[in-house]
Amino acid sequence: MTTNSAFSYADIERAHQRIFPFVQATPVLTSQTANQLTGAQLFFKCENFQASGAFKFRGACNALLQFTPEQKARGVVTFSSGNHAQAIAKAAQQFGMRAVIVMPKDAPAIKVAATRGYGGDVVLYDRYTEDREAIGRQLAEQQGLTLIPPYDHPHVMAGQGTCAKELIEAVGSGASPLDYLFVCLGGGGLLSGCATAAKALNPNCKVIGVEPEAGNDGLRSLRSGTIVHIDTPNTIADGAQTQHLGQHTFPVIQQHVDDILTVTDAQLIDTMRFFASRMKLMVEPTGCLAAALAMSGAIDLKDKRVGIIISGGNIDLSRFAKLILDTESN
Amino acid sequence: MTTNSAFSYADIERAHQRIFPFVQATPVLTSQTANQLTGAQLFFKCENFQASGAFKFRGACNALLQFTPEQKARGVVTFSSGNHAQAIAKAAQQFGMRAVIVMPKDAPAIKVAATRGYGGDVVLYDRYTEDREAIGRQLAEQQGLTLIPPYDHPHVMAGQGTCAKELIEAVGSGASPLDYLFVCLGGGGLLSGCATAAKALNPNCKVIGVEPEAGNDGLRSLRSGTIVHIDTPNTIADGAQTQHLGQHTFPVIQQHVDDILTVTDAQLIDTMRFFASRMKLMVEPTGCLAAALAMSGAIDLKDKRVGIIISGGNIDLSRFAKLILDTESN
Repeated sequence: MTTNSAFSYADIERAHQRIFPFVQATPVLTSQTANQLTGAQLFFKCENFQASGAFKFRGACNALLQFTPEQKARGVVTFSSGNHAQAIAKAAQQFGMRAVIVMPKDAPAIKVAATRGYGGDVVLYDRYTEDREAIGRQLAEQQGLTLIPPYDHPHVMAGQGTCAKELIEAVGSGASPLDYLFVCLGGGGLLSGCATAAKALNPNCKVIGVEPEAGNDGLRSLRSGTIVHIDTPNTIADGAQTQHLGQHTFPVIQQHVDDILTVTDAQLIDTMRFFASRMKLMVEPTGCLAAALAMSGAIDLKDKRVGIIISGGNIDLSRFAKLILDTESN
Repeated sequence: MTTNSAFSYADIERAHQRIFPFVQATPVLTSQTANQLTGAQLFFKCENFQASGAFKFRGACNALLQFTPEQKARGVVTFSSGNHAQAIAKAAQQFGMRAVIVMPKDAPAIKVAATRGYGGDVVLYDRYTEDREAIGRQLAEQQGLTLIPPYDHPHVMAGQGTCAKELIEAVGSGASPLDYLFVCLGGGGLLSGCATAAKALNPNCKVIGVEPEAGNDGLRSLRSGTIVHIDTPNTIADGAQTQHLGQHTFPVIQQHVDDILTVTDAQLIDTMRFFASRMKLMVEPTGCLAAALAMSGAIDLKDKRVGIIISGGNIDLSRFAKLILDTESN
């Protein structure tokens, strides 16, 4: 197992220099209502406004911008349940290289369409019976492509960490550091990068990973000290349907993350509703994880300065509309 | 009729100094997809993120902050189909004064609830049989309240104009002025203020007002040179269901607005869908007017820099969801 003692904030600083001409410096929004509900000052980093609709574009750019000319000429392959796929396809298109994307057959239609829209070659597989990593490795070998996995890669982790760097530079610098940073957790690319940035910039900031209750492998991994594998969890948070943390992400999470907690799908829908009706934001279920925990009362945030990453906004509009109407009586 | 030769950009500058500690400096967002569709560079000023969910808070603050101590002690009254009501109620609460709001019985539930949530005393009336202005005047006289109408007041117009001032200071200053500014039009408070700011800061910028097709009184007024009155128009753009321009707003519109055009409700729904799915923004139908025209192709915007005001985001979430599902086949 790779120990990653080498992964540090310097990687995130270099990533930021590399990618900032290509990524959106997304806004940080606040909500008086959310502040009143929690007694805290909440700062929402809106990666739903990131190019491709999610933070994943940061890691994709950071990875692809480090390709050698030969790698660039042959192209990239990846496997992804959605947002990483779009991010790689879009970044590859922008940097003029081929992208092959291995996607599950049941991925949200908006994500498959967007990936193809960015010029990605989509290869579909059955996520319940086939091994996407094996398919990806095979394509890489056969076609000379470079495999960039969705989270378990230092270049991806460093790219994702720029998101927390920007957030803290905007609202956590000087005499007003963040007391908490809440980050959603699937495979840990975003969490490992953001935790590394947070501890470097605001050493006393507590970093909390947030998972769907049905897929609490991260929580169990952190508490047991070893990577726990689970079956694909049944949750509306499709970006967090990972089966296990990564060999690169887990040690960094162990080092820098203070705790991992979970929220239910019902809490995610309530939060999606809050974002839409009060903050005028479309946020996908996975993107609601961090805010759902912050607003749940599970941690007393009174008078704290709290950073919250909204990871993305890619949800089928009709799926969103149905979720809203189906839960209307709540 | 008041001629308003006195209303000028200096009023907007003073308004901005007065209100900036209280209003949100809302972000300006861009969309690669919208740019590709139009061949232009579109800059969206997101007043859906304004306090109270719409630009109306700017004008409300500017009006209430000019009350005398005696006016302040007695309070404010207004009549409004929605967003101005919330804005006055919220501003009054913030400045510690009473607010009485005359609202139509069929106003969106979210707007009535939000107005009451901000502590406003709501008086309901029937918009098809009763005269809201008469009710407002009567309440003002009986209770010593100061009437602040939703658009036809120089303090309101000046406050709304700060929205275009911020937009142009962000993306239209120096060597890169805006070529066009698109603004939605109901009674003309926003349009008159924004046009005044635009012509002062970017003299060559063409200012276009956008109305719902069913309520084209502004277009007809501008072309005929006299204020045209219509019946309450049947449109989903409830913020633009005004029956006529104002005595204060019309002369300013005649002076500074280059043209007024219309879009259909179907175009508004398409635009609402675009905002939600591509830009991750919840925008109410009225807030879609300016963007709907820009994306319609009615004006050739190739290589132009175009400012677009998103006026607000206050739409019942279930109404939004139903509109999306009912038009799914489009």
